Amino acid sequence: MPDYRRRAVRERMTVRLDVNGMMSEAIGDEGLSRGEVEALAPRAAEIARALQARRAAGELPFYDLPRRDDLLKPVVALAEAVREEIDTLVVLGIGGAARGARTVMNALGDGQVRIVVADNIDPWTFGRLLDGLDLARSAFNVVSKSGETAATMAQFLIVRDLLLRRFGAIDYKPHLIVTTDASSGQMRQIVNDEGFRDLHVPAGVGGRFSVLSPVGLFPAAVGGVDVAELLAGAAWMDTRAQSATLWENPAHLLGALLYLAETRKGKNIVVCMPYSDRLQQLSAWFAQLWAESLGKARDLAGNPVRTGQTPVTALGSTDQHSQLQLYLEGPHDKVVMMLRVEDHGREIEIPAAYADLQGVGYLGGTGLGALLNMEQRATERALQKRRRMVITITLPQVSAFTLGQLFYLFEVATVFAGALHQINPFDQPAVEEGKRFTFGLAGRKGWEERRAEVEAWLAGKLTDYVR
Amino acid sequence: MPDYRRRAVRERMTVRLDVNGMMSEAIGDEGLSRGEVEALAPRAAEIARALQARRAAGELPFYDLPRRDDLLKPVVALAEAVREEIDTLVVLGIGGAARGARTVMNALGDGQVRIVVADNIDPWTFGRLLDGLDLARSAFNVVSKSGETAATMAQFLIVRDLLLRRFGAIDYKPHLIVTTDASSGQMRQIVNDEGFRDLHVPAGVGGRFSVLSPVGLFPAAVGGVDVAELLAGAAWMDTRAQSATLWENPAHLLGALLYLAETRKGKNIVVCMPYSDRLQQLSAWFAQLWAESLGKARDLAGNPVRTGQTPVTALGSTDQHSQLQLYLEGPHDKVVMMLRVEDHGREIEIPAAYADLQGVGYLGGTGLGALLNMEQRATERALQKRRRMVITITLPQVSAFTLGQLFYLFEVATVFAGALHQINPFDQPAVEEGKRFTFGLAGRKGWEERRAEVEAWLAGKLTDYVR
Repeated sequence: MPDYRRRAVRERMTVRLDVNGMMSEAIGDEGLSRGEVEALAPRAAEIARALQARRAAGELPFYDLPRRDDLLKPVVALAEAVREEIDTLVVLGIGGAARGARTVMNALGDGQVRIVVADNIDPWTFGRLLDGLDLARSAFNVVSKSGETAATMAQFLIVRDLLLRRFGAIDYKPHLIVTTDASSGQMRQIVNDEGFRDLHVPAGVGGRFSVLSPVGLFPAAVGGVDVAELLAGAAWMDTRAQSATLWENPAHLLGALLYLAETRKGKNIVVCMPYSDRLQQLSAWFAQLWAESLGKARDLAGNPVRTGQTPVTALGSTDQHSQLQLYLEGPHDKVVMMLRVEDHGREIEIPAAYADLQGVGYLGGTGLGALLNMEQRATERALQKRRRMVITITLPQVSAFTLGQLFYLFEVATVFAGALHQINPFDQPAVEEGKRFTFGLAGRKGWEERRAEVEAWLAGKLTDYVR
Repeated sequence: MPDYRRRAVRERMTVRLDVNGMMSEAIGDEGLSRGEVEALAPRAAEIARALQARRAAGELPFYDLPRRDDLLKPVVALAEAVREEIDTLVVLGIGGAARGARTVMNALGDGQVRIVVADNIDPWTFGRLLDGLDLARSAFNVVSKSGETAATMAQFLIVRDLLLRRFGAIDYKPHLIVTTDASSGQMRQIVNDEGFRDLHVPAGVGGRFSVLSPVGLFPAAVGGVDVAELLAGAAWMDTRAQSATLWENPAHLLGALLYLAETRKGKNIVVCMPYSDRLQQLSAWFAQLWAESLGKARDLAGNPVRTGQTPVTALGSTDQHSQLQLYLEGPHDKVVMMLRVEDHGREIEIPAAYADLQGVGYLGGTGLGALLNMEQRATERALQKRRRMVITITLPQVSAFTLGQLFYLFEVATVFAGALHQINPFDQPAVEEGKRFTFGLAGRKGWEERRAEVEAWLAGKLTDYVR
């Protein structure tokens, strides 16, 4: 396809951000005035330049993942080989290691190779999963940068033992494919010792920013997804998200408006509500990105802050019959971010019947997808009438190209919001605390004090407060 | 089993509520003082008596569902017949009609008959579901009290047409089983005209309180769940939830503490976080119950209020690597309600390996379920240290008996919190608004003005706010 044609197709497949519903023109005092947003523009421009400088200096490598062909090539090559060998790929990972793959497969999986993401350690479900596998036609992708996440390592030990017993000390190895740090960590040591096939988590890319790295791309490629097109979508958004002019930059605009909603309007909740089953897992991916990046107790200077909106996942239209009553009548404490898909990739006509029943007959002749989109507009309108903050993101279709745009849009919006909050969006200092207590309880050497602390606290619980 | 033995078993299988983590003894000023709770006791006793009086007068029929053998019998009889006929039951419903069944199957399904809950109208997924069914061995349970929910009626029209074309005008009928109002509504008219097999939604029981009625029990029974035991669990909780003494009544205590957290401590978010994959859907069921019942703009006297905590669904341990950073360091705006399962019904030992790697070796010999429960305690402790409000609900096992207790615990807690807020927990007035816009857009007669309103609003959107 000539470049100008390709460009025209790209334009038609561009994801659009509609922020009318955030503004005072639409919802009066509950909304943001144009002036409030304009006042942020100089700082926004400064942040945009600072982020570009850090990117150019190689300090923010997630930015360049859409164009890292050096990372893509080994992923595609390995995925092509593995796709021939198996019917099922089980991803053993947690958090960012799991959600990206799940999101991509939810939206785009071709069903030829089944991708199962096992991101919990419930023995009931993990046992049933293992029981049901044809091991000879299965492989496991262990994803852990450090090799010290207890849940993932426990899964790995169980699976390795199972494979060893089944296939013996040599033949079990092709069933394990490890995605980990290129040079350090316990999982790296294990890979080097055992000789499993492996892929690298690029340096400086944290779990929740890793979907466009081998972490997310390998399972996607095994699952039949056009990962190059996923990256092309991200690159397309990248070109749109480089402007230093706030109003021209969809990612910065999204980050800025959510930041203003939190800090100026007291909206401590952001709902992600796609009107498409295929984007349901995207909500869960966004929830991690937003929560873990922006929920912080200290700013960059070390001053105490308490930042972070709580993400809520909802699904249209079904949650209209679950959450909408609260969204319409409850406290003015949230922004509802709706995702609308113009073309669902399939349509089912609703047959005409019961014309005499007025509550039923009118549906005949409408398409099911058209009805879903009417529900979206109806709900958007109802929210606006009640002066609720709404952002509507429209996808022409659910495709690798549009999903890539969304990943990148949300990632850059998150980093930009972090800069406005003056916090570090890339760390998660508090998560370590819980891990240390687990180390103590599980008997890891050196953590005996943590165990004692938990036991003393449990013993001190007041029985009067247990019913 | 003699009665005293049965009672001893029941005692051991009792679900326990631990509210230590809500109290100032545990978390200082962020918690509630004993005095603050005591101050509520007289009103609580009054409400308890008022609710009992309304129950006795037959005004709150959901209370008596655990003991309605008259409702249970036709459910069990029909389910036994249907179980012989099919391999898959598809539930067509939305909101309360869907979530109860999904929750029960998530926790307890035996897998013999597959229960699919189709609670959305995405043509992509609905089409794929229909494509994959062996229609001869499938039945559809249409659940709608009024027969006017557009999404459910659209599904029904599509499925009816499909069955008609496949089996003809007589033989298609056994594939449709309708749960609807006993005497009124459009779906009732259709059932009477067509002669489908049917079950009744008991009068005065709304969708989100219907899981223990034929709405939730029929799919559960077809799915092989011991529904009598589910009701026995609910009845067991009922006996515990009748006390007028706040501290003795687990359901009232739960409702009161969440009410106080919202109104006195500004916690506008409640997280439901089970540490069990089998309770994941329970979170979604709870989210509807809590949001739709308590999110209200007017109190009973018609005065403007803005009540309602926003429910958030999380899953342990996996969301420790997604949401926990925010819960530990973000704003003090939430209560975390953890669900802990003592015995997961299966255990998988983690094999010993890599003893020389200190981040891995310590796991050997621990059970996977034991590790999951360590993660729960570690996280509970970490939250407490950061002075976050925590409620821990412990289930000895995941069973019909414990799940029945949980359903009833949450329902009564919700109604009690509604009484404290002085709002009506049984209605959802705002949801109608969105429905009217959908009627307009879909061309239903009499709603032309709504269509015009939406179209004018869409046309008036500022293009400058679309990027």
